[in-house]
Amino acid sequence: MSNDDARDHEPADAPSPGASQTISGIGSDYYTEEIHGPLEYFTIDAFELAEGETIRELEIAYATFGELNDAKDNAILFPHMYSGTSKDMEMYVGEGLALDPSEYFIILPNQIGNGLSTSPHNVGGPMGQGDFPDIRISDDIRAQHRLVTEKFRIEELQLVLGWSMGAQQTYEWAVRYPEMVRRAAPIGGTARNPVLSGLLVDALIMALETDPNWDDGYYENQRDLRRGLRHHARIWALMGTSAELWREESWRDAGFSSLDDFLFNLWDNWFLPMDPNDLRCMAWKWKHADVGRITDGDLAAALDRIEAKTYVMPFEKDYVFPVADCQREAEMISDSEFHPIPSPWGHFGMFGFDPSDFEFIDERLGELLAEPV
Amino acid sequence: MSNDDARDHEPADAPSPGASQTISGIGSDYYTEEIHGPLEYFTIDAFELAEGETIRELEIAYATFGELNDAKDNAILFPHMYSGTSKDMEMYVGEGLALDPSEYFIILPNQIGNGLSTSPHNVGGPMGQGDFPDIRISDDIRAQHRLVTEKFRIEELQLVLGWSMGAQQTYEWAVRYPEMVRRAAPIGGTARNPVLSGLLVDALIMALETDPNWDDGYYENQRDLRRGLRHHARIWALMGTSAELWREESWRDAGFSSLDDFLFNLWDNWFLPMDPNDLRCMAWKWKHADVGRITDGDLAAALDRIEAKTYVMPFEKDYVFPVADCQREAEMISDSEFHPIPSPWGHFGMFGFDPSDFEFIDERLGELLAEPV
Repeated sequence: MSNDDARDHEPADAPSPGASQTISGIGSDYYTEEIHGPLEYFTIDAFELAEGETIRELEIAYATFGELNDAKDNAILFPHMYSGTSKDMEMYVGEGLALDPSEYFIILPNQIGNGLSTSPHNVGGPMGQGDFPDIRISDDIRAQHRLVTEKFRIEELQLVLGWSMGAQQTYEWAVRYPEMVRRAAPIGGTARNPVLSGLLVDALIMALETDPNWDDGYYENQRDLRRGLRHHARIWALMGTSAELWREESWRDAGFSSLDDFLFNLWDNWFLPMDPNDLRCMAWKWKHADVGRITDGDLAAALDRIEAKTYVMPFEKDYVFPVADCQREAEMISDSEFHPIPSPWGHFGMFGFDPSDFEFIDERLGELLAEPV
Repeated sequence: MSNDDARDHEPADAPSPGASQTISGIGSDYYTEEIHGPLEYFTIDAFELAEGETIRELEIAYATFGELNDAKDNAILFPHMYSGTSKDMEMYVGEGLALDPSEYFIILPNQIGNGLSTSPHNVGGPMGQGDFPDIRISDDIRAQHRLVTEKFRIEELQLVLGWSMGAQQTYEWAVRYPEMVRRAAPIGGTARNPVLSGLLVDALIMALETDPNWDDGYYENQRDLRRGLRHHARIWALMGTSAELWREESWRDAGFSSLDDFLFNLWDNWFLPMDPNDLRCMAWKWKHADVGRITDGDLAAALDRIEAKTYVMPFEKDYVFPVADCQREAEMISDSEFHPIPSPWGHFGMFGFDPSDFEFIDERLGELLAEPV
């Protein structure tokens, strides 16, 4: 990959002012292939969760780009963040980019609970809405492992990467299946969720559950919870960014004309169409992420299992997954490099609102993929 | 003042695990002189607010320490922060400390809306609860000015200081009455509220207003809003501290035995007894603080009015009033020094949970008071 190519790339799929989400996305129209697809589905008949319950006919929705080669050794797995879908990270996939589909077979799985895979809002019967069981990161990774090994017969992944909850999944992959993961790029996330990050989850869940129409999760229409969803969105605006972004009004560079424009048409626009039970499911999973569960609570022992060449890539001004928390984990991984991403956007630097953030990340991914392992 | 004396001082009045607030403070028992007094009261018959309404019989509750000398030139004014009262900052007043009542006459005024001065929950008639008008920092400072000049006939203040909203009031004093303020110490706060800090206010207000029992502020009992109050408390725990505090578990050094102990017995304990309308009143005031209103929106012109020797003292890891925002303002003040406070506690370093924070602040105040002006 040439760096010049990357610089020419416009991350056009980043959330932008006036995205169609607002118009078409409210309520039940939001979780559709029209918006997030096209998708394929991998079904597991009876999937036992880490917490004990069994989901019947668990469906993992996923998208793929490129072709799996005959040796089945050109695969990359790229799970997504909180509130996201496979669609959201497609901006990092393209010819001339590090994740080049003419070279790699790139799988983008959807999290359990994200609204496209099996989720509180789309599952019927005894597990719908407020009855949906707690899901752990390890559940997703075990389901993704079956997708990768049973559906595609892949035995090694050239790269697992992800942002935020995608980083949590990346770490879980590298610790749980170290022999399969050649390279790992956890971006803006940690292997054990920081306490601070868990407090953010608490605040986000409280915003949803305190809504007068929450009704223990048995509401009729997600739109009735728009107050809680807006509150949730505004907490994200506060914590998902950085002091510098607000002080310097760097959001203007991304095309927002005023503070209200930015708050309504980015943050509210992003979260208002979503299902609160689905968000709550992902939030609980995020809060409880901890690879140390694989090694009886010993984080260092867990991270010592990692065989992958690992680029630990925090955002320098991230409030949610602070850079020092990421660095501490990087030091516990035998073959790791530490590449903090300079961005005024804090945690949300991943979207490439500042094109130089996108370029920085894409370049590091290109370097990592070029590393011999 | 000797530094050794300061180091020996134990800030025993900081909020602590198991403070009596929980037991005695729920609901209407909280805003009493038993907990926050003793207090005196200054009454203004008809006080016209910046936003236009008139409060009849506005009462400013205040506490004093020491004696006003015959020349009336030994006075210090020390307003308080959000959710606070005059009682909360008494820990900085004492023999051997910078604010020594054997030398100075120290006035601690209570904010309009804080629950002890005229406030939504204690005013009857047409302005109670959800009908209480919006109050501005300038309203408080004009009322305090009348207290200082009419009640005590004071024409100069040796020092005005305060933390957070107390810093906002300090700036308003120094800009509005520059000829009266000899020295100023805004601690962990700014002259114009940062956008980020306003977003925090929005989140705090949403936490209260989204409570199912909010009822536009016309609830019967503040205890019915405990869910919103707890949510509000947890957002403060998240934003009022620093990543380091959580990563290093520095809260253990302050005597908390577990994370739950810390969350329930500091944060929830602090906010649960309070009146949501009173909090909302202070929060709106905080969000809209801006000394530039005195100079047609020109912040630099406003800060250029300051004649006081000014120590700008942000907390190095403060999320709410970021250090760079404070520094930018310090550079606009002609006779200012910049003294960032190193503390893992972020915005809440003021309480001296780490005694070295208290000592640092007390020492700087001693130096400032020793400055010739």
